[in-house]
Order: sequence, then structure tokens, then C-alpha cells
Amino acid sequence: MVGKIILSIMQSLDGYIADKNYHSDFLEGYGGSQLSDVSTLEEGFDFAKINDIEMIVMGHKTFEQGYHEAYPEQTIYVISRENQRNDGRIHFVTPTRIVKLMLAKKRQGKNILLIGGGLAVRPFIRANAIDQYVIGTVPYIQGSGRRLFYPQDQPLPLQLESVDVMGGLTLSVYSPR
Amino acid sequence: MVGKIILSIMQSLDGYIADKNYHSDFLEGYGGSQLSDVSTLEEGFDFAKINDIEMIVMGHKTFEQGYHEAYPEQTIYVISRENQRNDGRIHFVTPTRIVKLMLAKKRQGKNILLIGGGLAVRPFIRANAIDQYVIGTVPYIQGSGRRLFYPQDQPLPLQLESVDVMGGLTLSVYSPR
Repeated sequence: MVGKIILSIMQSLDGYIADKNYHSDFLEGYGGSQLSDVSTLEEGFDFAKINDIEMIVMGHKTFEQGYHEAYPEQTIYVISRENQRNDGRIHFVTPTRIVKLMLAKKRQGKNILLIGGGLAVRPFIRANAIDQYVIGTVPYIQGSGRRLFYPQDQPLPLQLESVDVMGGLTLSVYSPR
Repeated sequence: MVGKIILSIMQSLDGYIADKNYHSDFLEGYGGSQLSDVSTLEEGFDFAKINDIEMIVMGHKTFEQGYHEAYPEQTIYVISRENQRNDGRIHFVTPTRIVKLMLAKKRQGKNILLIGGGLAVRPFIRANAIDQYVIGTVPYIQGSGRRLFYPQDQPLPLQLESVDVMGGLTLSVYSPR
């Protein structure tokens, strides 16, 4: 069975995942007084599926922030320009090799979670290698910082699979058309 | 009674309202096979309220695209750096004057609709002069073009008031916290 490559990330309404110092304290929900939680799915979005993943890809900055510690059981792939030695479950892979490697893992049936944005996500978008985009939108105009999506030459049409509203946040799932 | 200043616009998932030639053909919904329409409001978002507005503000480029023709009854304010003469219901106002003028109209009880993005929206965001953000999100990674939100120095925290999913699009309404 073929696996899936899943991007999961929160962005501000204006498309930032962190401020310029890589802090992301602003990424919290804030529901209006009349807002109720709803889902287009019968049982709501299943976070267990995302947490049940074996392999995780992250950018070097995300790794330095310690995000891998939230996933103690998984093999971690860190996108790094330097030729670093693997360290136990932590593997370092160059940007030019990461997509090809993950597509091979996917063919072997592995489910792969991509966390982070910007430079880490761009090669995957460019190769249309992402099967599922799980995007949380935070009610916040951040103004400046680190973008989720970098400019790119080719547009990529998606389709909306599901939307959940919870705790003042919107969680939308997209797949390629 | 005090009026409201409402921003209403569609953006791609990566924050563009048009391509670099000001075309926006990509701004259409595309629902996944399992997607049902839902709303956090009892009766769904009321577009009639938006169409019922007396005054409309748009950027010069939006005006040149002919968007004012969709609003034949309204007074149109076009943000323009040049000192142009008013032409019937079409008024030309400089970027430095527009926010102050609209806040005065709002105090007189007028409801004002702001369409367009980028340079036209920025002075209103900077002054925290927008009472309601009605933002449609299109399932599309556009990659390049005209942004809805320009970079700015100060963040602006919002709260989520309502979400509607319809025809493969998400429509979210925000207000300042």
C-alpha cells in the first residue's frame, strides 16, 4: 500500500507561521462570542491519524527549535544544506535529495508528516508531492515574519476536502485536484 | 447610529487576490467529494447585508478593472495618488486622506465596503479602521501576483466571528479583538 505525504501547519490570516525570530506565540485561536464549533465531517478531523505517523520531515530551523522532541518515536528527517552525520533517529538530508527520498519512502507504504514552512515546504510543493494539506488559520494579522508559502512559478490547484472550526481556529484540509 | 467599515475579498490559500496582471480567474471553489456545506451561523452568512451598502472604497487598479459597475447605486471612492476631479458618483481620494474621510462617514452612520487588497487595504489595517473582515479562501496555491496583505510593522489580533463552507470555498468573518 502506498503511503501519504502530509503537510500540517498553522498560519496567520496573512500567511505567516512565525515572526522573524522564529517565535510563534501568536498562533492561538480566539473565538467570537457567537462562534460555535462545526465540522464538515461526521466525526470531526482525526488528529490521531496525524500523530500515528512514522516519519517526520522538518526544516533545520524547526529542528533547532526542538519540535522533534514532540515526536519521540518517529524517524526525523531534517532538511540541511550541510553534510551532517545521522544521529540515531535523526537523519540530515539536503534540499535537493529530500523529495526524491520521501517519494521512495511513500512507495514503501510509509506515511510522512511535513512540519514547518517556507524553504522546507517549497521543494515538495514544486514537485506536487504533497497528498494532504492540513492548514490551521489563526485569526491574526502578523504583518511580517516567516511565510508558510514562498513565491513560486507554477500555480497548484487544490480542492477543499474538509473544514473544522474549533476553539476560534479554522482547520482546513486540501488535496491536489 | 455608527456605521461599519467592511473588507470583503477572496484570496488564494497563499494570500493572493490576483495574478501579476490583475487577473483573478483562479478565484473559484472546488469541493472535495465528501465536502458538505456548513455554517457556524444559524442561517448562514448574509450577503444581502454586504450588497445593501451605500459607499464603496476601491483601489485605482480595481476601479480600472471595472468593479464599480457591479455597484450602480453606490457612491464609489477610488484611492488615487493623482488629483483627479470627481465624476458623478465616482470620487477620487488620495491614500493619505481616505481613512480619515471614511471614519468620518462611518460616524455619520454610513456602512462602507472596502474591496481590493494590497495598497488599498493597508492604510485601513494600519489604522485598525476595519470593523469586519469577510475573507473567502480559495483552494489554490497561486505562487505569485498581487497580495491581499502587505507586510506591516504592527501585528493586529483578530477574532473569528463565523465560518461558512459553500461550493468548495471557505468564507470566514473576523473582527478586531
